[in-house]
Amino acid sequence: MTENETEATGIVSLVGSGPGDPELLTVKARRLIDEADVVLHDKLPGPAIIETIPEDKREDVGKRAGGERTSQEYTNERLVELAREGKTVVRLKGGDPFVFGRGGEEAAYLAEHGVDFRVVPGVTSALAGPALAGIPATHREHASTVSFVTGHEDPTKEESAVDWNALAATHGTIVVLMGVGKLPEYTAALREAGMGSETPVALVERASRPDERVVTGTLETITGVADREGIEPPAVTVIGDVASERDRVREFLRK
Amino acid sequence: MTENETEATGIVSLVGSGPGDPELLTVKARRLIDEADVVLHDKLPGPAIIETIPEDKREDVGKRAGGERTSQEYTNERLVELAREGKTVVRLKGGDPFVFGRGGEEAAYLAEHGVDFRVVPGVTSALAGPALAGIPATHREHASTVSFVTGHEDPTKEESAVDWNALAATHGTIVVLMGVGKLPEYTAALREAGMGSETPVALVERASRPDERVVTGTLETITGVADREGIEPPAVTVIGDVASERDRVREFLRK
Repeated sequence: MTENETEATGIVSLVGSGPGDPELLTVKARRLIDEADVVLHDKLPGPAIIETIPEDKREDVGKRAGGERTSQEYTNERLVELAREGKTVVRLKGGDPFVFGRGGEEAAYLAEHGVDFRVVPGVTSALAGPALAGIPATHREHASTVSFVTGHEDPTKEESAVDWNALAATHGTIVVLMGVGKLPEYTAALREAGMGSETPVALVERASRPDERVVTGTLETITGVADREGIEPPAVTVIGDVASERDRVREFLRK
Repeated sequence: MTENETEATGIVSLVGSGPGDPELLTVKARRLIDEADVVLHDKLPGPAIIETIPEDKREDVGKRAGGERTSQEYTNERLVELAREGKTVVRLKGGDPFVFGRGGEEAAYLAEHGVDFRVVPGVTSALAGPALAGIPATHREHASTVSFVTGHEDPTKEESAVDWNALAATHGTIVVLMGVGKLPEYTAALREAGMGSETPVALVERASRPDERVVTGTLETITGVADREGIEPPAVTVIGDVASERDRVREFLRK
């Protein structure tokens, strides 16, 4: 802590909202939201959850754009500011707060500034998406590992941090979050890495929400399917033999 | 469906319990448990959750041993039987029902036997373990992927389905569920695969439970640390640079 900064007396809870259905909040998330003085959120938790929070304690940190500060810096500072005012703060994040959500950076910032915080893990869309489509992430016959990766990485960039060759070599299930935009690029990267063109792929759009949709294909066909059906974010892509399990069970799969 | 089998009128919900804290059940899991006629469970959800279920509707399918049937076959058949009696059934599984839980096999069996089912994803211990220890599964600076694997696989077996070389090559976070028993074997396998001996490792024992413990070390030292501290199942192992984030934040991390 630097000089002139007082010890914070509030606390920040970094809370995962799950994939969008308010019933997929954890009991603890629900309680902390209800008890909070302020809930900082962006649009990722989805309208059905955001609408359950009284308007006078919501603060939307997703809309801020431009200016000298990035949105993330603003959010970090706002969390510290509120905690120093003694507020009980919930930072509500889509899915799980520590999976591709920059929750780790928020935690580090809070600790650096002497702010107490807790983490409330949530149901990640990376598992809820496949599960609600009838697809097990792992399977004794098909997949001994499951890997999550973000589709925001461009696989054609030299400096891409994601090693698609290594992912293909795991022979496990690959789940791509935010999987729509770069679908042509990473399906090509995985085929170049040696995954068969016939590898089953499912795309789950708006998992757990009333307008959830699932489309299926293969590494070769899924881009065409997604285009034809007009699949839009948010969606997760499930790549691997497990994706074919959906066909075995879907007739009896209920909500 | 075979002849002489009547259409089931009940429904089976395959429900994830989360890592053990009853507050990390989802709102939907809590509701379905409370509304169920019967809850089939094993010991994995943990005592704190199991005790919240009225005794007269609990059925423990984890204790059954020996006989001609395996426990899994018995469970599959029992689920079908109860659904055919018109019962509202919850099959409660530790963590997420579709992550190393054989939930996919149960779903397939139910569908094959004409039984309606639903899946209620849960908070997986693979994410809750690290998160509650202050460790983000992914991080913009450290980890662009996270992979889950089960420690029940013996990495020294020729036919091991887990490719530790490929996992090491992802340069992402590796989370090993049921990670205690084979800790010496897979840490050795990862070092042989080229991961540095100094790679940070954390072991989270009984994540989210009142007696949760976290110990940390490196790929080289963690086995000795785990022995000295007497770490026992259930525990998850977090391997990768993100594990060092705990030291940055733990002073301010609250429950």
